[in-house]
Amino acid sequence: MSAVGSVLESGPAPRAGAQAPSARVAMVGAGQLARMTHQAAIALGVELRVLAASADDPAVRAGAAHVLGAPDDLGALRALAAGCDVLTFDHERIPPEHLRALQDEGVVLAPGAGAKLAAQDKLHARRLLAGLGLPVPAFTHARTPADAERFAGEHGWPLIAKTPREGYDGRGVFTLQGLADAERLLGETPGGILLEPHLALDCELSVLVARARGGERVAYVAAQTVQREAMCREILSPAPIDAALAAQAQALALELAEAIDATGIMAVELFATPGGLLVNELALRPHNSGHHTIEGAVTSQFEQHLRAVLGWPLGAGDATAPAVACVNVVGPPDGSDPRTRLPAALAVPGAHVHLYAKAARPGRKLGHVTVCWTELRAARAAALHAAALLEGRAS
Amino acid sequence: MSAVGSVLESGPAPRAGAQAPSARVAMVGAGQLARMTHQAAIALGVELRVLAASADDPAVRAGAAHVLGAPDDLGALRALAAGCDVLTFDHERIPPEHLRALQDEGVVLAPGAGAKLAAQDKLHARRLLAGLGLPVPAFTHARTPADAERFAGEHGWPLIAKTPREGYDGRGVFTLQGLADAERLLGETPGGILLEPHLALDCELSVLVARARGGERVAYVAAQTVQREAMCREILSPAPIDAALAAQAQALALELAEAIDATGIMAVELFATPGGLLVNELALRPHNSGHHTIEGAVTSQFEQHLRAVLGWPLGAGDATAPAVACVNVVGPPDGSDPRTRLPAALAVPGAHVHLYAKAARPGRKLGHVTVCWTELRAARAAALHAAALLEGRAS
Repeated sequence: MSAVGSVLESGPAPRAGAQAPSARVAMVGAGQLARMTHQAAIALGVELRVLAASADDPAVRAGAAHVLGAPDDLGALRALAAGCDVLTFDHERIPPEHLRALQDEGVVLAPGAGAKLAAQDKLHARRLLAGLGLPVPAFTHARTPADAERFAGEHGWPLIAKTPREGYDGRGVFTLQGLADAERLLGETPGGILLEPHLALDCELSVLVARARGGERVAYVAAQTVQREAMCREILSPAPIDAALAAQAQALALELAEAIDATGIMAVELFATPGGLLVNELALRPHNSGHHTIEGAVTSQFEQHLRAVLGWPLGAGDATAPAVACVNVVGPPDGSDPRTRLPAALAVPGAHVHLYAKAARPGRKLGHVTVCWTELRAARAAALHAAALLEGRAS
Repeated sequence: MSAVGSVLESGPAPRAGAQAPSARVAMVGAGQLARMTHQAAIALGVELRVLAASADDPAVRAGAAHVLGAPDDLGALRALAAGCDVLTFDHERIPPEHLRALQDEGVVLAPGAGAKLAAQDKLHARRLLAGLGLPVPAFTHARTPADAERFAGEHGWPLIAKTPREGYDGRGVFTLQGLADAERLLGETPGGILLEPHLALDCELSVLVARARGGERVAYVAAQTVQREAMCREILSPAPIDAALAAQAQALALELAEAIDATGIMAVELFATPGGLLVNELALRPHNSGHHTIEGAVTSQFEQHLRAVLGWPLGAGDATAPAVACVNVVGPPDGSDPRTRLPAALAVPGAHVHLYAKAARPGRKLGHVTVCWTELRAARAAALHAAALLEGRAS
């Protein structure tokens, strides 16, 4: 009798289980970006440990190991990094001096403290980009109402004002209609504000670039982002723009990643204006404008980020479908929870629903829906419909 | 000054966070199938709780909530099911009487105890399928050597013998060269064995079908499975067979799901023989032969299983690429851990690597690699190469 049984049954005696140590990545933050990074880490057998404010944070609810603490607590950051191969980020809100301290102590940061600052301080970023000769909007650092008046004299009211050191999803971004607005904002912002003209835009674009420790780079195709109430609401990929412009956006993003010594995923947000492309902002981490890559690219931004920060070979960034649309699911005004309407959204053909396990609040990003299709208009319509169902705006 | 800030800053005061209860799924087992089900559960915001033998089990290491216990411990099964919407499975090794007891106590099982038995007892399955008029290999229940001799008189030696109530990956499957082998095996198997002829096969196929509570059904395209040492080693999708045969395999699987009242994902393994298709075995759970659906189908078998057992609408099973190849990564003879060779495999273009965080042992399934491509031969070559790199058989 010959056992056709598995080799465990019929083969040589198994050796004691050898288990190589898993790669360990520490991530500051435990929001939806960390949650989706954890999903990607599972496939690669990477252990992700996150810094969480609470055990209810999205990444912790997905099962990531965690350290409880605040990102401005150096002790918590040290505890997070201990024993991990690399420390990375799901947000920008870590004091730059803490990052420099960790780096000085020998913690491997990806991106490094210097590169990360380009995402943490908008004024620093503008000066850096302008210094590199990259196209950016006109800007000034206004410390006084007179500074604002001078800039308005060149560009006219209204102006866009940004607080340099905070802000995402439109937080820290203001439209100034005139000098009185500038006076009020400057009164609340002792360090001054970043001012730029109110530009006429053709559209907004985002290009994801991954840069590995070691320097390997991969750029994803340029996507259009659609903002509402200053929050990214839709991602349309590829952006329905001229191919030469798309190629230029990719080239700019690749150049930028190299110039600032980025590591990991970087999202470069650009303005397409009648006068050409302008670089708006950078995020040195996985970014909302890259959520469509989970199903819509060969390598998702989350897996790519892990590969890059660990110094592993990057994956292809190619699209998996001719058109990919991704729409954010935002807490509706009545405070109701989109989860109660999940089955309806799942009935939309091709809808990939991602929910973040966050408590529902009006205006809060609670999930997203991605649809891959042969054609962008249909993909967008399906994704918008599924999101509207989740938000209770359709039936 | 108008804040373009997010509605959290500028909109109405947020309400207290409303949080609808998440759907909760209990799964008996915490192996790689539960691990990948947990990944899918994260996207849907579903909470998965698994029954684990140890906190080192693959699904627990991926962060699934868990109850420690054995699948033959009714108390542990009750603890697992408590508070969950539905109880489902990542393996077959649960005593059928426990399933009936849980069902009688009001636990919602998916699949139900009766349907699950078709995957737990091979003899029961054969009789059931034959009774439904579905094509199955000739078989007999041999209790004595005389039974085996009679069956060999009709079909000739060698015969294939299976123990009815255990076995996966070739465990519990034996080739009997003659009467002496039958006597030996029957001496160890008091309940008798399932005997079938040693068939000439064109190839082996697998068809995944999902059937939701409520009856909605989706069939995936038939895939070819390639076995080595009685373990599934490769999945090639679509199976490179005649379209009519592939359609017949799908139709058989759909009919079967309905006939046995399956719920969730069911894998139907078929033999393609010169005389036509024969149904070999069933698995009423996500299955190794469906791993390619993670990247290779619009809805992975794991998400589909969750949708089905929760009674939610099913997703499309359509392929995302013209050809998808998936190759298992098996512990090499030297006991070394494929994880140490992960970066090399990640350099293979298009290789999606999945590692299960299991201790490496020779012959143990430790992961798989999937490649989606325009053409099957190239997809298979790339997946085989990446798996060989992980197993230390290539460089």
